[in-house]
Amino acid sequence: MSDAIYKPGLEGVIAGETAIGSVQQDGLYYRGYDVKGLADHAHFGEAIYLLLKGELPNSAQLQEVRDKLDQYRPLEKAVVDMLRLIPKQVNTMDVLRTAVSMTDHFCPVKGDDEEAWYQRTLYFTSQIAGIIAARHRLTNGLEPVEPKPGLSHAEQFLYAFHGADPDPTAVELIDLTLILYAEHEFNASTFVARVCASTLSDVASCIVGGIGTLKGSLHGGANEKAMEMLLQFKTADEARQWTLDAIKNKVKIMGFGHRVYKSGDHRARILEGKMTVLAKKLGEEKWIDIYMAVKNTMDEEKKIFPNVDYPCGLVYYLMKLPTDVYTPLFVASRVIGWAAHAAEQHFNNRIIRPRSRYTGPALRPYVPIDQRK
Amino acid sequence: MSDAIYKPGLEGVIAGETAIGSVQQDGLYYRGYDVKGLADHAHFGEAIYLLLKGELPNSAQLQEVRDKLDQYRPLEKAVVDMLRLIPKQVNTMDVLRTAVSMTDHFCPVKGDDEEAWYQRTLYFTSQIAGIIAARHRLTNGLEPVEPKPGLSHAEQFLYAFHGADPDPTAVELIDLTLILYAEHEFNASTFVARVCASTLSDVASCIVGGIGTLKGSLHGGANEKAMEMLLQFKTADEARQWTLDAIKNKVKIMGFGHRVYKSGDHRARILEGKMTVLAKKLGEEKWIDIYMAVKNTMDEEKKIFPNVDYPCGLVYYLMKLPTDVYTPLFVASRVIGWAAHAAEQHFNNRIIRPRSRYTGPALRPYVPIDQRK
Repeated sequence: MSDAIYKPGLEGVIAGETAIGSVQQDGLYYRGYDVKGLADHAHFGEAIYLLLKGELPNSAQLQEVRDKLDQYRPLEKAVVDMLRLIPKQVNTMDVLRTAVSMTDHFCPVKGDDEEAWYQRTLYFTSQIAGIIAARHRLTNGLEPVEPKPGLSHAEQFLYAFHGADPDPTAVELIDLTLILYAEHEFNASTFVARVCASTLSDVASCIVGGIGTLKGSLHGGANEKAMEMLLQFKTADEARQWTLDAIKNKVKIMGFGHRVYKSGDHRARILEGKMTVLAKKLGEEKWIDIYMAVKNTMDEEKKIFPNVDYPCGLVYYLMKLPTDVYTPLFVASRVIGWAAHAAEQHFNNRIIRPRSRYTGPALRPYVPIDQRK
Repeated sequence: MSDAIYKPGLEGVIAGETAIGSVQQDGLYYRGYDVKGLADHAHFGEAIYLLLKGELPNSAQLQEVRDKLDQYRPLEKAVVDMLRLIPKQVNTMDVLRTAVSMTDHFCPVKGDDEEAWYQRTLYFTSQIAGIIAARHRLTNGLEPVEPKPGLSHAEQFLYAFHGADPDPTAVELIDLTLILYAEHEFNASTFVARVCASTLSDVASCIVGGIGTLKGSLHGGANEKAMEMLLQFKTADEARQWTLDAIKNKVKIMGFGHRVYKSGDHRARILEGKMTVLAKKLGEEKWIDIYMAVKNTMDEEKKIFPNVDYPCGLVYYLMKLPTDVYTPLFVASRVIGWAAHAAEQHFNNRIIRPRSRYTGPALRPYVPIDQRK
């Protein structure tokens, strides 16, 4: 193994090829389209089709996506019954990991060809939004609501969550975050989905693996952690002082920095614009001051910039969504990226199996148990 | 990214350091001990302690492992109720993915320090064996049996599975396969567990990710597929002819070949010895003839050798275990390797985040939906 290459954390190592997304210093691209253009003009349904099929859909193709999502929305009674069995205090990401695995047992789509992978992906996408909403309602003493056909995915999520017709601004913001979070090349959770697919496992297993990985505080969990940090502060001064202390004490500040983007995350800038408009509309400008205090201090002191999770946490907070659905909403979007990568891996496969460098004890003889200290 | 390294499938790329296991051409080593010595002399409880704690246990330490496994055995009523909600025909690996995720919601051990990771690992190890047995009984119209304290892990599994005191030969063989399957460096499922841990996710998510990955037919699923292949044959001649045809038609033969071992898998040789003794004892020598016909043909024609999954499938078959618990039994063992690696990653972490090479369309302008073809 002396000729093997050693790269801790695989930093800079290219682990495969992809035609799905491209993370560049100057932007993020889905199948060649700048995510900024998609955020400005498209809806999540278009991003779903684009990422999974490779091209933007025409009206008929988009309608087909929406119809299929509608068809796959109803939650199986057994899945809801299972949600009832899980104690109230369990984190929604953990619930989602279990429940998405459970929905697989009731998936109406069988087979292992490309069309089956695509349909199964739409099934899980639809079910995930429904599970997040149903779990929220059940833990608040409410029953899940029946899906209302004809709504967009963002509308449907908010309708199922609140049990009432959603506010258009809320729909727009959920749709935007769904687009921005959908795909990000070989991040840790997507990489897990690909490694899983590379053993010729199924799309459900790839998605469930992605959920467990996204949960980590260095990954998707960061949007929740970032907002929990901001909630400590009553003023911008407090936020600035805390940030200076955190930098001094080498405390990790969530929602900042990125392995790839060195001069800032484009998705964060897109979200910041919408966030500021929303805060003003709601008379919540103080949160923008607090947000900017941490951001500016990090910039001045460390030249480290927000990633998408930092503004996303505040956007969801301003929308009055409970903190523990922030990362699940990331799942509701990234399921598309995971599934697109898993399919790309599956249909042009080579098992992903790296090596390790052994640093443990040298060969030693077995010692019978009665001779051990 | 021009300086980045490209290695499809990460072949030969060292993705991290480990002191847990070492896969060498001349053998497999757990913490410096040859797995052959452990297979000959130790029980699975000793392998658990060795892999998780770094040293072979003395009698008191081994007793503590056994006591903890006993303490963690009872399945929560909600977990059994959930098993009842899953349709009978669902594959046991899929059930296990859901059920292990579910057991996490009832784990009595809290916290994120090394002791909590260790205790949580023992909890999942104990629960996994119980779930496999309970699911088997439920799908056969039987109720799960209460655990019997004081049995070894292998004894307990067979007791819970059959609902009767187990045969000593069966205990010995289950114990052996539990030892042989426990750890294998950076294989795909263990690598998933490490990538998951590298986001600072939890041990439950790492194990659930491992289960979904192991399920693939290029990984743990191979022991089931290998036996399904053998079951087609009535004679050694049939097996030889089929193998020659499969080689000619480039059909993948399950249970053969290995990314690392080029001259054969040591674990396969250890199992083959026991398998032959068992077959003779049972008067089932014809299976050895069939087994050898495929093996010898692969050797003569392709110089490709069995990996551990090939004899393991036949060993479980001779023990009259149903095919769809073969890979779950691999989980019952490898959970230790996954958890040991996840903990090693978690407590000395650097996020695992490789890059990809983009091969998709070049930058293209957004086209409004009414202008798309």
